Amino acid sequence: MNFTKVGSKPQRFVHFYPATVVVIGVYAPSGRANFMPAVWHGGLSFDPPLFGVGVSPKRYTHELLVTAAAFSVSMHPYQQARLIQKIGSVSGRQVDKVAAFGLELARGRTLEVPILGGAYAAYELEKTDRVTTGDHDLFIGRLRGLWEDEEVFAGDAVDPKLAPSLLYYGRYRYGRPQPEVLDLEGE
Amino acid sequence: MNFTKVGSKPQRFVHFYPATVVVIGVYAPSGRANFMPAVWHGGLSFDPPLFGVGVSPKRYTHELLVTAAAFSVSMHPYQQARLIQKIGSVSGRQVDKVAAFGLELARGRTLEVPILGGAYAAYELEKTDRVTTGDHDLFIGRLRGLWEDEEVFAGDAVDPKLAPSLLYYGRYRYGRPQPEVLDLEGE
Repeated sequence: MNFTKVGSKPQRFVHFYPATVVVIGVYAPSGRANFMPAVWHGGLSFDPPLFGVGVSPKRYTHELLVTAAAFSVSMHPYQQARLIQKIGSVSGRQVDKVAAFGLELARGRTLEVPILGGAYAAYELEKTDRVTTGDHDLFIGRLRGLWEDEEVFAGDAVDPKLAPSLLYYGRYRYGRPQPEVLDLEGE
Repeated sequence: MNFTKVGSKPQRFVHFYPATVVVIGVYAPSGRANFMPAVWHGGLSFDPPLFGVGVSPKRYTHELLVTAAAFSVSMHPYQQARLIQKIGSVSGRQVDKVAAFGLELARGRTLEVPILGGAYAAYELEKTDRVTTGDHDLFIGRLRGLWEDEEVFAGDAVDPKLAPSLLYYGRYRYGRPQPEVLDLEGE
């Protein structure tokens, strides 16, 4: 392996990819829904259930998340790669993405959040915190409402045969998991 | 989709999986190396380059990370699934994992960190912060040293044909990505 001493920004910061793409949904104060794909995300706590998304202050979604009380995060199959790439390629400052791309959306049931259609799971998250980490902010939300296509969860895990998650490699490259799962319980 | 209102802990919190498994490496004050696989991890900033791992205070690794000045994070191929499952199945409080499993390791070049062998990439991270998020702590590290098998990075992305990342679905279930990558640059 090659070694590089890192000063400020490394040449690439993609070694921990692929990551699933989630779509953040948030209403603007005007009531317009906005969506942004994100790969810097993850679970932060089981009890209480907390989920975090890292968003750059350059993004319109950041501006909305700063004032919003809630946001959604949805998980999508590989089949939606092109749509999600489009959603990420323009800014909600310039474009009404719902109108421009004919997006289907649902409204949250416990919180005022828009949820992008086509997902196999989605979280309604009450914003609880914002932590600045370098050039991004980590927005933390507490899970208040859970949507799931119960057919795709086998033994408390997503079954990639039934829902091939959309994976991201960086630089507009997408992929999906192999359908086989290796079960090492008890080993 | 089915909807569930969530109070405290949801029945499952795996909808954003699969996630790549990274291995956290840290020296105990005694000088003994300890390793723990983690799936709650991710990039937090490009400049400065910050990476975070979520670790429960129940874990021995948590105790070590609280006092350590640095830790490593390494990325491993699917072929190491069984070994990494073993590493995650016992606690470094009871077991010297390096001796018990005959682990190969390298020593960090810029920081005092152990790095698990077999990785296709690894970060030497200077611990910069610890943020409590519910029942986990997010340990944040600044990238100071980068190890990479340069042959597996194509166009600034991991090439799953050359390095099939170890993916985790929850509940001891592992997988890997399909070798094909969909390049949507310019679309």
